[in-house]
Amino acid sequence: MTHKLTARTAAQKKSLTNRLKRLEGQIRGLEKMIEDDVYCNDILQQSMSAASAIDGFNQELLGYHMKGCVTEGIKNGDEEIVDELLKTVRKLMK
Amino acid sequence: MTHKLTARTAAQKKSLTNRLKRLEGQIRGLEKMIEDDVYCNDILQQSMSAASAIDGFNQELLGYHMKGCVTEGIKNGDEEIVDELLKTVRKLMK
Amino acid sequence: MTHKLTARTAAQKKSLTNRLKRLEGQIRGLEKMIEDDVYCNDILQQSMSAASAIDGFNQELLGYHMKGCVTEGIKNGDEEIVDELLKTVRKLMK
Amino acid sequence: MTHKLTARTAAQKKSLTNRLKRLEGQIRGLEKMIEDDVYCNDILQQSMSAASAIDGFNQELLGYHMKGCVTEGIKNGDEEIVDELLKTVRKLMK
Repeated sequence: MTHKLTARTAAQKKSLTNRLKRLEGQIRGLEKMIEDDVYCNDILQQSMSAASAIDGFNQELLGYHMKGCVTEGIKNGDEEIVDELLKTVRKLMK
Repeated sequence: MTHKLTARTAAQKKSLTNRLKRLEGQIRGLEKMIEDDVYCNDILQQSMSAASAIDGFNQELLGYHMKGCVTEGIKNGDEEIVDELLKTVRKLMK
Repeated sequence: MTHKLTARTAAQKKSLTNRLKRLEGQIRGLEKMIEDDVYCNDILQQSMSAASAIDGFNQELLGYHMKGCVTEGIKNGDEEIVDELLKTVRKLMK
Repeated sequence: MTHKLTARTAAQKKSLTNRLKRLEGQIRGLEKMIEDDVYCNDILQQSMSAASAIDGFNQELLGYHMKGCVTEGIKNGDEEIVDELLKTVRKLMK
């Protein structure tokens, strides 16, 4: 953790937060499915859908990051931000 | 949804449920980070960790499914369960 | 390597071999692009297409494996083949 | 295809080309394995290794792209290159 902050618009915060709220609901749905002894393959469909939801969140946030922080950083001569981005993108590719 | 059920041991249910509880905590942590305007790249580390947690859940559940439902199904002559598994595995590979 | 063999139909072998031949052509195309100083993003489109081609090969082969070797193995009481499959699927999920 | 060119150092070209040559050898090895009726799971280990080799190539090339073309582009006021990169990274995440 860097303790750095990123200013986001109200619309960006709302969109990201809504994704997380929906995801939280999906996770609670999965807990209920385990509790109710639901068939494995049916649970897997729901958990793959939760995994896609996290990917969607990551893609949206990465877009803000690249168009905001990274573009500004490069313009201001911060070359380290490119290394940091590359490291994160390599992790996202796995 | 098939409305089929899968009997799981108490230990299996506890292990899967614990994974989901931890994941729920991670998602709530992400919501707080968005609220607090935390730096994008720091949030991405946490959300990639949540994505890994879902993968871990999927792998554990898939293991129970293959060693339980699928193995029993094949022994009982249910060939459709192999097609169903293959379809799910192909989605998991993406 | 186990030195075990798998009997495949002529059609299966032809289909898998054709995928590999096309892939070999894609790789040679990539070598030419590097030689010709083609723009990075254009090369990445071609290399992502080669990565998809390998995924397609893996999915086809995995299908034959699960419907053939694994189904037969389970029917003949070979439980180890399920562990082996699970290990491979977990690697494919990454 | 954009018909744009990217100047790469001799060392970069050599490193990328060597990766592709090794990959070509792996693909030909896979063709031989199919021809020789090698056990499915053994072939899958080799094809997953080929998939990792393409990932390695993609990561190396993406690094050159981000530190070269993208950084220069942003400095020169080309904002489109960020959209192009984001689109490619989203495909690489799949």
